[in-house]
Amino acid sequence: MMEPVNLGTEITDRNDRALSRGLSHIERGDDFGRALLAALYPRTGGAHVIGITGNPGSGKSTLVRALAREACAMNFTVGIIAVDPSSPFTKGSILGDRIRMNDLAAELHVFIRSLATHGALGGLSRAVADSVDLMDAAGKQIIFIETVGVGQDEVDVMHTAHTVAVVNVPGLGDDIQAMKAGILEISDIHVVNKADREGSDRIIAELKSMLTMCANGRNGWKIPVLPSIAILEQGTGPILEAMRLHFAYLKGSGELEERRRRIVKTRLLSIVQRAIEDAANARKSGCEDLVEQVLAKKLDPYAAGEELLGRLTEMRTGGGVRV
Amino acid sequence: MMEPVNLGTEITDRNDRALSRGLSHIERGDDFGRALLAALYPRTGGAHVIGITGNPGSGKSTLVRALAREACAMNFTVGIIAVDPSSPFTKGSILGDRIRMNDLAAELHVFIRSLATHGALGGLSRAVADSVDLMDAAGKQIIFIETVGVGQDEVDVMHTAHTVAVVNVPGLGDDIQAMKAGILEISDIHVVNKADREGSDRIIAELKSMLTMCANGRNGWKIPVLPSIAILEQGTGPILEAMRLHFAYLKGSGELEERRRRIVKTRLLSIVQRAIEDAANARKSGCEDLVEQVLAKKLDPYAAGEELLGRLTEMRTGGGVRV
Repeated sequence: MMEPVNLGTEITDRNDRALSRGLSHIERGDDFGRALLAALYPRTGGAHVIGITGNPGSGKSTLVRALAREACAMNFTVGIIAVDPSSPFTKGSILGDRIRMNDLAAELHVFIRSLATHGALGGLSRAVADSVDLMDAAGKQIIFIETVGVGQDEVDVMHTAHTVAVVNVPGLGDDIQAMKAGILEISDIHVVNKADREGSDRIIAELKSMLTMCANGRNGWKIPVLPSIAILEQGTGPILEAMRLHFAYLKGSGELEERRRRIVKTRLLSIVQRAIEDAANARKSGCEDLVEQVLAKKLDPYAAGEELLGRLTEMRTGGGVRV
Repeated sequence: MMEPVNLGTEITDRNDRALSRGLSHIERGDDFGRALLAALYPRTGGAHVIGITGNPGSGKSTLVRALAREACAMNFTVGIIAVDPSSPFTKGSILGDRIRMNDLAAELHVFIRSLATHGALGGLSRAVADSVDLMDAAGKQIIFIETVGVGQDEVDVMHTAHTVAVVNVPGLGDDIQAMKAGILEISDIHVVNKADREGSDRIIAELKSMLTMCANGRNGWKIPVLPSIAILEQGTGPILEAMRLHFAYLKGSGELEERRRRIVKTRLLSIVQRAIEDAANARKSGCEDLVEQVLAKKLDPYAAGEELLGRLTEMRTGGGVRV
């Protein structure tokens, strides 16, 4: 079998098949993937990572597609990470979007990867961050991460991006606004897609007034609200331009360093959490007796948690827990 | 200040004001709340915990409201935990649903609590599980948990329920189906709300055929697909009945014990993860130097994670990490 360092060289030589193979290791979180990431990590840091999020039906896949096309036309190398909300149960078979994405990959020189959201706490943002690193080392200059905009895990994924765009759409009702609240505080650009629909003027006005009220403390960057009709590729030029301007702003203001720092910190924590979880799941950690004691009401959950933490610590001392 | 054990007595005496005060401690995760939970934990285990999830616009708040009314009419004591997807940034001020919920609390003897989703990994499901315990100890016989149906965190919340119902709605497009995939494998009942809308027959047929294909391995319980028009309180009787039947099935088949076991195990892990995260966030754990080394590409994230894990273990030995 090929050594990680050799696959790494193929990846930095911009071999997309090698990148695909590397990403499979990354997703499995295996030792090969770990070694590959360690080898390539010094080559990262060049990419502009753009997170795009929005409710189902907002047309965010279509928007990402149009933005990728636009970026290619400007001679950027582009990667897309589409976070697939399907579970192993459904295996993504009902996701028409993913098929449309593959058309794009064939049509343009865009590298597309779909990631499943299945699995453990912290698993998704870990896989996304590692995948971003690999694409970055492979020379992708712009990496789009597309995900649905609700849930803490999705918010965590967006925290791995330099620039976050939220896609809104007219006519989906009041609930929609509430859904996005969790992501509002980290959005840098608002897009109102399907802007030919009734109500788009109103949603643009609402967003602008909300931003006026809330966006203090955002020193320097004025969050734009931009209309688009992604399916007709209308408005996507100015959106990509705003994204690039935001990246320039981050660099110029020193905020890019601040964001990178936050991203790394979040990532370290999720790596450690994952390690703890794996250890607790492993047979030898034996939390089953604690579970039984909680079920029998002999221990409350926190007392049992304290005991489990103690055992994991002993395991660690004995070399049983590793990242 | 009142002792936890005294507040606990007031709670088991079914004083809803005391329950409210207790829940505030639980949400803050303070020592008082911890002691309260330890005191009340032996009194838990009587409630039927029902998770209800669905996309925004599916009318799930209205459905929960109608189901709560129905359950009250059958002389059940009812609690509702509404998971509020807003962040501290917006403070839930744009959530009309929460206001409608409070009307219900006043109108019926339903105890309603709204939980914010802000904060750390594992924080939400921890708070939900603890809140369920308190309501359970307070004698609530049916506890509804309402949450949006996407994101790993939301799926985790649903894992704290005995019975999970997914609310579908006609006419929201194909994306919707994809969104729910993460939660499909744990749903016990499907509701098609707004069943007077065009397309409801089609979505019911689709769900049934999907269940025929996928729902092997679900020994004994045939997942029903039930229509409703929640706003007119139509169809909610049979839905509540299906929920109670499912609970009876869980008890009769021994699966309830299995689910309780899974719930406790997940909960222990999230308690331990939270402890680790808190420790890493605390100033004294000092992961800042590791962050800087990763930024400088002197360490890759996993090597830094390994080092951080080692430090946390040392802290633990020194008593620095606690749940």
